[in-house]
Amino acid sequence: MKKGFLSVFVFALFVSCSSKKEQKQEEALITVTNDIERIEPPNWWVGFKNNNLQLLVKDPNIVEATATISKTGISIKKVTKGDSPNYLFIDLEINETATAGKFNITFTAKDNSKKVQTYELKDRDKKAEDYVGFSSADAVYLITPDRFANADSSNDIDSTLNEKAIDRTNDYARHGGDIKGITKNLDYIDKLGFTAIWPSPLLTNNMPQASYHGYAITDFYGVDPRFGTLDEYKELAVKANKKGIKIIMDQVANHCGLEHWWMKDLPFKDWVNYQDEFINNKPVKISNHKRTSNQDIYASKADNKIMTHGWFGNHMPDLNQRNSFLAAYIIQNSIWWIETLKLGGIRQDTYPYPDKDFMANWAGSIMEEYPNFSIVGEEWSYNPLLIAYWQKNNPNKDGYESNLTSTMDFAMQKNIVDALNEDETWGTGFVKAYEGLANDFAYQSPKDIMAFLDNHDMDRVFTQLNENVENTKIAVTYLALLPRIPQFYYGTEILMQNTAKPGDHGLIRTDFPGGWESDSSNAFTGEGLTSNQKEMQNFMRTLLNFRKQSKAIHNGKTIHFAPQNGVYVLFRILNDEIVTIILNKNESPYQLDLSSFSEIGLSNKKVTNISTKQSFIWKDSLLLPTKGATILTTKINQ
Amino acid sequence: MKKGFLSVFVFALFVSCSSKKEQKQEEALITVTNDIERIEPPNWWVGFKNNNLQLLVKDPNIVEATATISKTGISIKKVTKGDSPNYLFIDLEINETATAGKFNITFTAKDNSKKVQTYELKDRDKKAEDYVGFSSADAVYLITPDRFANADSSNDIDSTLNEKAIDRTNDYARHGGDIKGITKNLDYIDKLGFTAIWPSPLLTNNMPQASYHGYAITDFYGVDPRFGTLDEYKELAVKANKKGIKIIMDQVANHCGLEHWWMKDLPFKDWVNYQDEFINNKPVKISNHKRTSNQDIYASKADNKIMTHGWFGNHMPDLNQRNSFLAAYIIQNSIWWIETLKLGGIRQDTYPYPDKDFMANWAGSIMEEYPNFSIVGEEWSYNPLLIAYWQKNNPNKDGYESNLTSTMDFAMQKNIVDALNEDETWGTGFVKAYEGLANDFAYQSPKDIMAFLDNHDMDRVFTQLNENVENTKIAVTYLALLPRIPQFYYGTEILMQNTAKPGDHGLIRTDFPGGWESDSSNAFTGEGLTSNQKEMQNFMRTLLNFRKQSKAIHNGKTIHFAPQNGVYVLFRILNDEIVTIILNKNESPYQLDLSSFSEIGLSNKKVTNISTKQSFIWKDSLLLPTKGATILTTKINQ
Repeated sequence: MKKGFLSVFVFALFVSCSSKKEQKQEEALITVTNDIERIEPPNWWVGFKNNNLQLLVKDPNIVEATATISKTGISIKKVTKGDSPNYLFIDLEINETATAGKFNITFTAKDNSKKVQTYELKDRDKKAEDYVGFSSADAVYLITPDRFANADSSNDIDSTLNEKAIDRTNDYARHGGDIKGITKNLDYIDKLGFTAIWPSPLLTNNMPQASYHGYAITDFYGVDPRFGTLDEYKELAVKANKKGIKIIMDQVANHCGLEHWWMKDLPFKDWVNYQDEFINNKPVKISNHKRTSNQDIYASKADNKIMTHGWFGNHMPDLNQRNSFLAAYIIQNSIWWIETLKLGGIRQDTYPYPDKDFMANWAGSIMEEYPNFSIVGEEWSYNPLLIAYWQKNNPNKDGYESNLTSTMDFAMQKNIVDALNEDETWGTGFVKAYEGLANDFAYQSPKDIMAFLDNHDMDRVFTQLNENVENTKIAVTYLALLPRIPQFYYGTEILMQNTAKPGDHGLIRTDFPGGWESDSSNAFTGEGLTSNQKEMQNFMRTLLNFRKQSKAIHNGKTIHFAPQNGVYVLFRILNDEIVTIILNKNESPYQLDLSSFSEIGLSNKKVTNISTKQSFIWKDSLLLPTKGATILTTKINQ
Repeated sequence: MKKGFLSVFVFALFVSCSSKKEQKQEEALITVTNDIERIEPPNWWVGFKNNNLQLLVKDPNIVEATATISKTGISIKKVTKGDSPNYLFIDLEINETATAGKFNITFTAKDNSKKVQTYELKDRDKKAEDYVGFSSADAVYLITPDRFANADSSNDIDSTLNEKAIDRTNDYARHGGDIKGITKNLDYIDKLGFTAIWPSPLLTNNMPQASYHGYAITDFYGVDPRFGTLDEYKELAVKANKKGIKIIMDQVANHCGLEHWWMKDLPFKDWVNYQDEFINNKPVKISNHKRTSNQDIYASKADNKIMTHGWFGNHMPDLNQRNSFLAAYIIQNSIWWIETLKLGGIRQDTYPYPDKDFMANWAGSIMEEYPNFSIVGEEWSYNPLLIAYWQKNNPNKDGYESNLTSTMDFAMQKNIVDALNEDETWGTGFVKAYEGLANDFAYQSPKDIMAFLDNHDMDRVFTQLNENVENTKIAVTYLALLPRIPQFYYGTEILMQNTAKPGDHGLIRTDFPGGWESDSSNAFTGEGLTSNQKEMQNFMRTLLNFRKQSKAIHNGKTIHFAPQNGVYVLFRILNDEIVTIILNKNESPYQLDLSSFSEIGLSNKKVTNISTKQSFIWKDSLLLPTKGATILTTKINQ
């Protein structure tokens, strides 16, 4: 037995050596050749759990050609011709003997002429489990890159693209912000206390107008030249990661932009929904946006079809994820970006619009490769039932398992704003936040849900709160210290508003002052800010830096007390750390009876105000001199 | 073996005969004696699954006495003295050899003096599984008995009770309606198409004022003399059951009335919550009504305690169900009434206020004895998460199992009223009903939830709908044909309203015309009704009688289509029966495109309008001449 085992071992070593040697020889023979118009993904990696890779190959009349590969460990499992003669889909199996390196794919036409395409498999330089996604330990800074900072004016206009103008006086034109603008200001973001950045999409949007927002992607593998280059995107990710800041990529699986390169020559007859209408220049169906039809056990088939297959808008062709090649394309694209940028998470746009079974498969495929990753899906709904439905492990009665770690908490957003705008009565005011938070009993993992006060699609929170500074501070405090992943929109820290035009998306995404050289004020340096703006910036800096180191906020239990007399008190507790959050609406001094909170065990303990740094002993009552938020921290065993 | 088996069998027969004989002998010796002031339950039955019975015995200084029983099959397991010397709690075990009949319980005092109380065990004359509770096959008529019909003026005033006046001009005084008034008008209720009656509580409310509503019970075993007698209650139940009408008893486990007999001499120190304060004539705590604290994983202990232990109101002492004797008392009381009245269900008041573990035990104990019974719990919440939480088998994350078959659908009530009062826009109007119904995906059994347009605690639906007759018809239709147990408040059929004083409980519970001899109009006969009232009465009669025989409405699947242009269309389908429900808000004629509904399979089928009885063939479109509800029925295989 022993002898036999040894023989096998030696043989294996021999094979392995031989194989490596052979592979090196293979590579030595490679001349990098790019005869093919387009091959996607542009490269891949060895070492994934899933050893299948499907290549989209686009070249004139490619369906007539035969593809061959000669590389150890890689085999062609299947080749599928597109409905268009210009597409081949090649299914490769990459087995464990395959090593990183370049190899050629040869396409031999019927007349025996050949085209050669060099393809590369790379080594993975980060372990799968080290891709740690955003969590309740993070605070997320949402940026509209075109409006944040323009660090490279040379890329403002790209004459090869449809929209060439730059016009900062037009809310819907490009303003010139770019990736370098984010990279340049990482220090500002870091010092504010943020640990993750979610820039809205940076991929090419070659649309004739309003291309600045990024949600009409026309090349899923291309960085928009007006934002920068792939290398600059990688540089942003590397520099951010070095500071402990995660990059959350905003992805769109539901639709592309009307000017996507494939719209002129679609691979299959069912690549996009209502493709016949599109090709024949007829009006395509627009989604009825009846998102409840995803869950509704009574929804008609007709409503559900128009919901999921209908286009999000006239300029956004709806991708048909029931086509398995499109499905694989989207999943591989997501993995390509995670691996290329070492992402710290994905935000998936318009989550309820694609086929939900595909979305579960998409998220599942990613989570299978990156077990500690995070993905947040956007469903704009104030209904906690839907928020709960999309989060993984929810016991959905239809058996649906989303595989999604995080959902967006629009319900909380509305509750916070209502709580602050409304007068305190039996059913209005703080009770909205209190009862809204009470709904957490229905969530599988409340702390993994992403909450926010506003985003790029809704009025600035300062506008929503009628430009009430104290209420904005209360809102910011509550959001930052909830059992959630808090997300803030850039500029909240300087009270950015869109009060002149509520609902105006262009104005909501106002330029961040200081992001352009000519700006008269500069939020990065503080120059020219009003005292209210400076104070808010300091307030958030203190709050988020406190949050950053507070394990009780990241993972502690929560206890809150029903609001009384305009005061809402919460506690976050982990081991010996107790954080007290007092939200007070009273304009006149208010004496808070602390004995109501005796179950917390703070009596006679020293607590410290995180803003004033002053400490005092927790006794019978506390004077709240003015309206606002008070945050006290305690180490019980001190 | 065979021989041995036979011996045992013969022996068993012998024992059995002997035992029955002995028991008859026992009974022959009984002289009915009632030396004891109060013993509850007043009787019991043999043949329950649970063979334990706990007697509350109240008599001066009874704790000093020793209780003995001599009846085959019944043994005293335990005797517990009350904190008050005037209460004994006797735990009996009734084993399978016990037969129905009377027996004596002898109480021997220390001085050897004896008191004898005759107690009766009855045979159960209906099988446990034949207690079939209300279901989606039923339509429920909610009655405020004091305000429905006064068939016996001799019981209007009872001089032994605190509130002696009768005054029909005072909304909060007694008006004289009684049990006989319901019994007398069963035919009216039956012909309207109702199959269940829920009268608000008929038990004694010996309160000094506003005792008419019945929710401040002062004797859980006594019928309020102003409503009638126990025999009259039994007669109502028997006569109703004969017509196929179920009686749903309105029970209150959370509190009693301040004038409850035991409040003057409470059995234990913890019989009611905040008992010390009560006894010492100090202000007791009133509930904070923060009902979400039942589910809220962050609720403070303080809030949850004041919620569940606080009194519902100053006149309603909060029963302490954590006292096991009080708990057993309430459970036995419910079973006593089910068995005595052959109930078809229980409606439990203020469901979230008692200790929820007790409520689960209460409902579970009842359902264990009556597997086909129904219980509906009232939680006034518009939050579907809470509606779902309380229904049995819901996968609650805290593991809570309510054992409750049905919950009250306040969310649906609000959605229907909003849907009809609001203009049709993207987010208002019919979409409220459509999206509200879509929440059914979250319910364990939507068809077992009880829905309604109004009840005794809220404005009459006709008032809520701004006295719009057509909208009221649409609301009534939607409610009646939903996958729900529909409940209507008495008088909805004649457009009863409280428009003069919105929110006024007394006016909401207006006298039903014709219920009093002197009434100028009579809804039972139709005399003096306006044409609108008559039309509504006919409309509901047609609707509910259609509903009564429609298996598709009782148990069919539901398909609804997103409302468009002010028209909301639903289908209920079971086997070959298809019911089409068209709700139309358009005042001008509207041509409805029927091709949108092709998935239903009605094309070229004959459909019949249930109101006009006219039939037509389902083609491309249907003209809706006026605003209102259209109900079409089809047998596919006809």
